[in-house]
Amino acid sequence: MKRDYNNENWENTGGTDTGGPDMDGGFQKKKPYQRHNNRNFTRKTQNGFRESLPPSVSVQRKKVKKNSSGLKIIPLGGLEQIGMNITAFEYEESIVVVDCGLAFPEDDMLGIDLVIPDVSYLKENISKVKGFVITHGHEDHIGALPYVLKEVNVPIYSTKLTIGLITNKLKEHNLVKTTKLKEVRHGQVINLGDFAVEFIKTNHSIQDASALAIYSPAGIVVHTGDFKVDYTPVFGDAIDLQRFAEIGKKGVLALMADSTNAERKGFTMSERTVGRVFDNLFSEHKNTRIIIATFASNVDRVQQIINSADKFGRKVAVEGRSMVNVMTTAAELGYLKIPENTLIDIDQVKNYPDEQMVLITTGSQGESMAALSRMAANIHKKITIKPNDTIIFSSNPIPGNEKAVSKVINELCQKGAKVIFQDAHVSGHACQEELKLIYSLVKPQYAIPVHGEYRHLVAQSCLAEELGIPKERIFILSSGDVLEFGDQEAKVTGKVHTGGILVDGLGVGDVGNIVLRDRQHLAEDGIMIIVMTLERHSNVILSGPDIVSRGFVYVRESEDLLGEARQIVEEALQSCLDRRITDWGKLKTVVKDSLGEFIWKRTKRNPMILPIIMEA
Amino acid sequence: MKRDYNNENWENTGGTDTGGPDMDGGFQKKKPYQRHNNRNFTRKTQNGFRESLPPSVSVQRKKVKKNSSGLKIIPLGGLEQIGMNITAFEYEESIVVVDCGLAFPEDDMLGIDLVIPDVSYLKENISKVKGFVITHGHEDHIGALPYVLKEVNVPIYSTKLTIGLITNKLKEHNLVKTTKLKEVRHGQVINLGDFAVEFIKTNHSIQDASALAIYSPAGIVVHTGDFKVDYTPVFGDAIDLQRFAEIGKKGVLALMADSTNAERKGFTMSERTVGRVFDNLFSEHKNTRIIIATFASNVDRVQQIINSADKFGRKVAVEGRSMVNVMTTAAELGYLKIPENTLIDIDQVKNYPDEQMVLITTGSQGESMAALSRMAANIHKKITIKPNDTIIFSSNPIPGNEKAVSKVINELCQKGAKVIFQDAHVSGHACQEELKLIYSLVKPQYAIPVHGEYRHLVAQSCLAEELGIPKERIFILSSGDVLEFGDQEAKVTGKVHTGGILVDGLGVGDVGNIVLRDRQHLAEDGIMIIVMTLERHSNVILSGPDIVSRGFVYVRESEDLLGEARQIVEEALQSCLDRRITDWGKLKTVVKDSLGEFIWKRTKRNPMILPIIMEA
Repeated sequence: MKRDYNNENWENTGGTDTGGPDMDGGFQKKKPYQRHNNRNFTRKTQNGFRESLPPSVSVQRKKVKKNSSGLKIIPLGGLEQIGMNITAFEYEESIVVVDCGLAFPEDDMLGIDLVIPDVSYLKENISKVKGFVITHGHEDHIGALPYVLKEVNVPIYSTKLTIGLITNKLKEHNLVKTTKLKEVRHGQVINLGDFAVEFIKTNHSIQDASALAIYSPAGIVVHTGDFKVDYTPVFGDAIDLQRFAEIGKKGVLALMADSTNAERKGFTMSERTVGRVFDNLFSEHKNTRIIIATFASNVDRVQQIINSADKFGRKVAVEGRSMVNVMTTAAELGYLKIPENTLIDIDQVKNYPDEQMVLITTGSQGESMAALSRMAANIHKKITIKPNDTIIFSSNPIPGNEKAVSKVINELCQKGAKVIFQDAHVSGHACQEELKLIYSLVKPQYAIPVHGEYRHLVAQSCLAEELGIPKERIFILSSGDVLEFGDQEAKVTGKVHTGGILVDGLGVGDVGNIVLRDRQHLAEDGIMIIVMTLERHSNVILSGPDIVSRGFVYVRESEDLLGEARQIVEEALQSCLDRRITDWGKLKTVVKDSLGEFIWKRTKRNPMILPIIMEA
Repeated sequence: MKRDYNNENWENTGGTDTGGPDMDGGFQKKKPYQRHNNRNFTRKTQNGFRESLPPSVSVQRKKVKKNSSGLKIIPLGGLEQIGMNITAFEYEESIVVVDCGLAFPEDDMLGIDLVIPDVSYLKENISKVKGFVITHGHEDHIGALPYVLKEVNVPIYSTKLTIGLITNKLKEHNLVKTTKLKEVRHGQVINLGDFAVEFIKTNHSIQDASALAIYSPAGIVVHTGDFKVDYTPVFGDAIDLQRFAEIGKKGVLALMADSTNAERKGFTMSERTVGRVFDNLFSEHKNTRIIIATFASNVDRVQQIINSADKFGRKVAVEGRSMVNVMTTAAELGYLKIPENTLIDIDQVKNYPDEQMVLITTGSQGESMAALSRMAANIHKKITIKPNDTIIFSSNPIPGNEKAVSKVINELCQKGAKVIFQDAHVSGHACQEELKLIYSLVKPQYAIPVHGEYRHLVAQSCLAEELGIPKERIFILSSGDVLEFGDQEAKVTGKVHTGGILVDGLGVGDVGNIVLRDRQHLAEDGIMIIVMTLERHSNVILSGPDIVSRGFVYVRESEDLLGEARQIVEEALQSCLDRRITDWGKLKTVVKDSLGEFIWKRTKRNPMILPIIMEA
């Protein structure tokens, strides 16, 4: 059911439209959202861009009398890096949280598995938090949920496939029973305290992506999520541009749009074009096995590979845990149509001739443990790369993965395979012309670029300015900024605590800057440990000092250096004891400094030096 | 002076042509090179590609009678990665070495500064080695010289600027006096034992680059070095295509050509096009300070920045040690023309208005210690980035540097600077059309793609095959392969020892796989050290066991875990002593295993566990 908010009765239907079979559960039905025809408030600006005052200015003005607070937008992550998207929308006693993603560790976060947002602000205001509203099922939008739910257990609202993928995730963490998951259809509105949130169909590199229209008494905020404009999507409808226009016509306070491709000119190609590339490649490589690596979550891509396989009479096998998981969920929920007798088990591959096989695999980013990387390194148990295999990377390297991808390509080439890594991919993010389109449909008063590195946010700001939004109405926020919409203007009025919490194995937050700094130091030049046993009180040396090193030099070939080092330590220690210095802290410092200086002079290296004194 | 090898007297002039003022020094003038008109040996192949037998087949045949060995090409590095280019050409008692470069460390080579080739083969055959012949002055072609010369001290031959840059390098290592440097002009031939080597003018992203025609009794090998075809270079002549054609006409045994851009279609743009981009950018940004980051070694690029600065009435300041060094050398040797009163000292920048300044800087690859990165991070002593600064990246990120470059761009954007990172760069390497051109001029019998990752070598192989070179005459070699040209065919007949030697600080080769593996282990999860003192003979515990950790967890917040860990160790130890296990090796193993298991179970981490037992 698609809601039409153009009818003037919408004001009174807010409460009834939020339900549906899944909608009757854990969220409060507060006062229905007040909507006003905002035509009165629009006017042409000098540069021809229609400036729309929020539809609910009158509401806000009314409220101002009893409470001066307006709408607050508080990004709790996602603005300092790609990933970890999470934004709180607050109005008086209501908070709605959009997305709850993880980030992958930066290069200097040694040993860290993933990074999740610090949600102290939500915990402190837990009574206000009405729910998570999730735009789509990518890790940078849902990945932190299993961690955050343990502290902020509120209902989660999203579309069918997204809920399906979240459910998989919660199963792994044994959280399904304790979590309220609410499925929403595009066009549907849910009431969350003072807010109402409408899910609007968009296109992206995963199905069931949504933009959100977030209705508050202070006005409407449109949040695009990650999106592109695909007029000819593989599955389902194109982005609901009409709805963006309708809402825009009513007057939108602020637009928060995806900046990922804001530096790129033009228009992102339709996902469907990749299908034609597959058809051509299948037609050109009729006599070889075809192996295609792509993103597990790109169900449409997988669908197109299956379609081409079907067309060219090939069986399809799937390899890689995440690929199997997503495909299973997508097929179960009806997002992936697999013709009968097409899919075969990976163990059956050997029973079919090469020219009748397509293998879909993970590893398009060169991840060392992914299936394709293991095949390339000859350590995959079931698939051996052969000369004449045709291997297609249906992906672009994500920045930072270029070398890893290249390594896999080189290894595949060395095995005689033909590797194709161009033209079989399109982006899932809007380029400049698409962003201009959305701005022109939505015509927001304020622009708040989101999703991207700072350079991308700046690129979108420039676009917004070109489209006539005054500079002072464009906000590039930092995580933790409290952007408050007042009566006349918006400004950053405060800062809440945010940050990334490092997850390493089972440990969440037990590795911080000190541990990371130590890891970096150890990684660079290794460690030298000096142990000695001193007699209690007398400080007579009972044993040692001994030097043990790891990651510093190859000990067997550096006996002279280590011998001299030991002598330096002994002399330093003896001179302390001679001077009756008995404070262990002082002893350690002297040992550390003299050894450090000696090692630097001799090797220009700076290993971690760790003196350990034992008392006997 | 340009040699014309078309005249039939060339046979007799080999000896006299190798001299010149710089050429009378340290190399032997052996038997003059024998040249034969090879027209007799050329014939059309089926696919229309002229197949040329080597010009000296008769020579070779004569030689075969007394000695069956032919020409050997032995790459000692450079084929498994980008960098570390070094190739030995061997004929009987003569070895000529082309280039002697370093490689930058791979991501998993933690703490390593650079990698140099293992030249055991040259050391073992030192009496044969006649000299190094250097194609151009980039680090991946000259960077290992200071290290290798210490073991293989033979003369170095190259063009003026290259010799200048090598001299700078040798000065740093205090090796100038002990090294024989021989300057060669393009067109000149030098005799090196059984070989004669001709330097042929090419274009590249550094001036004075050369291809080499390596004449041996077994035939001519053409080695392009790194090159592109620039019909309108900024300085000096275009690549000497006529000479490639002349030599090709005589008959070339093998072509070793640059593969770096072999995957790229089309033609690399002329360096001069970047000058026009600078002019446009200078004209568009008349009112702001301009800062341009580029490669220190790209003198032509710097020249064009200076030209634009001069045209638009701006002063030029230079920042970054390597930039200052190369510019000084290039200007001294006449490769860089700086108009009077253009260059100012970095300390003078503050005395000029922004719109009259251009700053040329290092850091275009996001290197953390380079000048631009320090400016971006606000830790540069002399230059502070201001809003409205225009910052131009005249470079592309080298694969692997994308994230570092993006980090710097983000930091610059955050300071309000306008960052331009597109269109102000062209590559220095030949694309597919240029490679086809060189193949078509040289028409080699054999193709040996060099300079590039495996995927790039494969791409060039495909081109060579398209151009009619039979597959069995295309060799993708590995480092150490001995490619021997016999009477009828070429084949890999052996393998010599090669490898990368890691340089870490002052240490050359003292860090190997064991140390690296330890560094990786330490980087991932840190270290736990268990120390205890046992009484000699009795094995009574005098002190400890104590646990000290670094890079594992934040200790203050993990007291419980570490307390339990200590208990585990104590129990393990006690159970050993109870069972009268007194072998220290055994004790350590038990401690290590029990603690490792406990920590994995509790944290899913795997720190290095290092038990140290002291004897008192």
